Amino acid sequence: MSKRCVVFGANGFIGSSLTRALLSEGHSVRACDVVRDFFALTPADRLECETVDFLDEVAVRNAVRGADWVFHLVSTTKPASSNANMAHDVQSNVVSSIHLFQACVDAGIERVLFASSGGTVYGVPEVLPVGEDHPVRPIVSYGLTKLMIERYAELFRRQHGLSTTSLRIGNPYGPRHYDQQQGVIPVFIRRIQHGQPVEIWGDGSVVRDYVHVDDVSRAFIAAAAYVGDEAVFNIGAGEGHSLAEILARLASLSETPPQVEYRPARGFDIPALILDTRRAREHLGWIPAINFDDGLSATWHSLK
Amino acid sequence: MSKRCVVFGANGFIGSSLTRALLSEGHSVRACDVVRDFFALTPADRLECETVDFLDEVAVRNAVRGADWVFHLVSTTKPASSNANMAHDVQSNVVSSIHLFQACVDAGIERVLFASSGGTVYGVPEVLPVGEDHPVRPIVSYGLTKLMIERYAELFRRQHGLSTTSLRIGNPYGPRHYDQQQGVIPVFIRRIQHGQPVEIWGDGSVVRDYVHVDDVSRAFIAAAAYVGDEAVFNIGAGEGHSLAEILARLASLSETPPQVEYRPARGFDIPALILDTRRAREHLGWIPAINFDDGLSATWHSLK
Repeated sequence: MSKRCVVFGANGFIGSSLTRALLSEGHSVRACDVVRDFFALTPADRLECETVDFLDEVAVRNAVRGADWVFHLVSTTKPASSNANMAHDVQSNVVSSIHLFQACVDAGIERVLFASSGGTVYGVPEVLPVGEDHPVRPIVSYGLTKLMIERYAELFRRQHGLSTTSLRIGNPYGPRHYDQQQGVIPVFIRRIQHGQPVEIWGDGSVVRDYVHVDDVSRAFIAAAAYVGDEAVFNIGAGEGHSLAEILARLASLSETPPQVEYRPARGFDIPALILDTRRAREHLGWIPAINFDDGLSATWHSLK
Repeated sequence: MSKRCVVFGANGFIGSSLTRALLSEGHSVRACDVVRDFFALTPADRLECETVDFLDEVAVRNAVRGADWVFHLVSTTKPASSNANMAHDVQSNVVSSIHLFQACVDAGIERVLFASSGGTVYGVPEVLPVGEDHPVRPIVSYGLTKLMIERYAELFRRQHGLSTTSLRIGNPYGPRHYDQQQGVIPVFIRRIQHGQPVEIWGDGSVVRDYVHVDDVSRAFIAAAAYVGDEAVFNIGAGEGHSLAEILARLASLSETPPQVEYRPARGFDIPALILDTRRAREHLGWIPAINFDDGLSATWHSLK
């Protein structure tokens, strides 16, 4: 059945992919973002683009009116820089999210989906892969605000019956990753393609769970359709790749060997993170469909 | 050794008791509160009272200058009402606390102590008594903001070396509990002493860990002097009492039998909470000194 969807952060990497996926499944989308120019989206039937500042409580309230599904993919901060202004992180992300949840209660929204962070909410994992019930001890403000938003979503579920689900997403990658600041894969690819040296923080052994953005979009849609008690799902590939490994794979795609500059490891980098995604498989029937080799190669060619 | 102390929330129930305890141990205190009239404190040597709005970042920054120990006992919300305006709860408590921690880093403060909430951070306990490592799943916004402030304190410790400790306090009670809105004991006592009916939400079986405010003050001072890795301590009696039991004890102190009105149980009330206080005993050498019978009786007589 066709749903009326609102996507906040629709011009972002995941948001634009999700918007396209929703449209292709026959849903209508009100694509909201703070940008004026929705460069990541092309005009389409059933697509309405609206410039909405997520910090503007009234604008958010107006945007959700009449919707069935609301997707919250906004973040005003990034993992690496969030510790530099924690008050701003809380203010702009947590407070605004509470306003959104309240607006969704008042508008009688059917489902609210939140993009949380599998890479930062757990902190330093005690075991790998990390399941949803693993202790949550974020070591960056970004992870702490994501966690807090999840918890407020649960309070709204408990107190107001708002049906909310949080997806703890691994490291998303894929074509059309416009933001060069976030995500090692597009940064590495661009630098190699432009003959610039690649910077590696630490010795290249850092392992992350890279999940293709199209798989993430499918997970959001599966979670929106899900009816059940689980409020939090890991969304990752369920396998890890080191920076050194990614670099080697990209080197094999490149005509010239990449130059590498090693930098000191950063305090907010967790040595290894791989997500246990069994809950999503069981309850959402979701498994990642794109293997890393294919996804990486397609990303390489798309950015050429 | 005498310390220069700053107490935020110094006119409150715990804050005023702590201020008196610090003074009696020879420390000097800058007592800060949003009130203009420090009715809970009497003038004393080494005591300076200052009207400071905790939400005023600049005022807080000025207040901590030159201090050794900073005690953060401010809360702008209460457990029962915090869900009514969660955005305000986050805004006024979490954001302001981050500003305080940053100010303490910049001022080179030796120790920061935070009054967290043993009654709300754990949510519904899986086991009793509840230890500090029990999962934290608050079901009220009050508990969630307390938890987030603890976590930001830990981030500041990790990132800036700020020495912070959080005390998860049970239900404090004792003489001079001026706030009639919070704490069943003063509310019950006043109503019985005035011949008014006592309201009980639920069947009277709700169990809490009541800890005498003077014991709480001693715990704060012990925690301020503590050097070690533990960042969070439960501070409670380590035993529980039901509302029915408290009512029976107060009835025995009263000349006329109390009237009771039973109300429906409230959704934010946890059935039973008793704190495991072994960590405080081991690391702080702290044990509660005032038994409940004596404390309750003294409170009864002080409020007459």
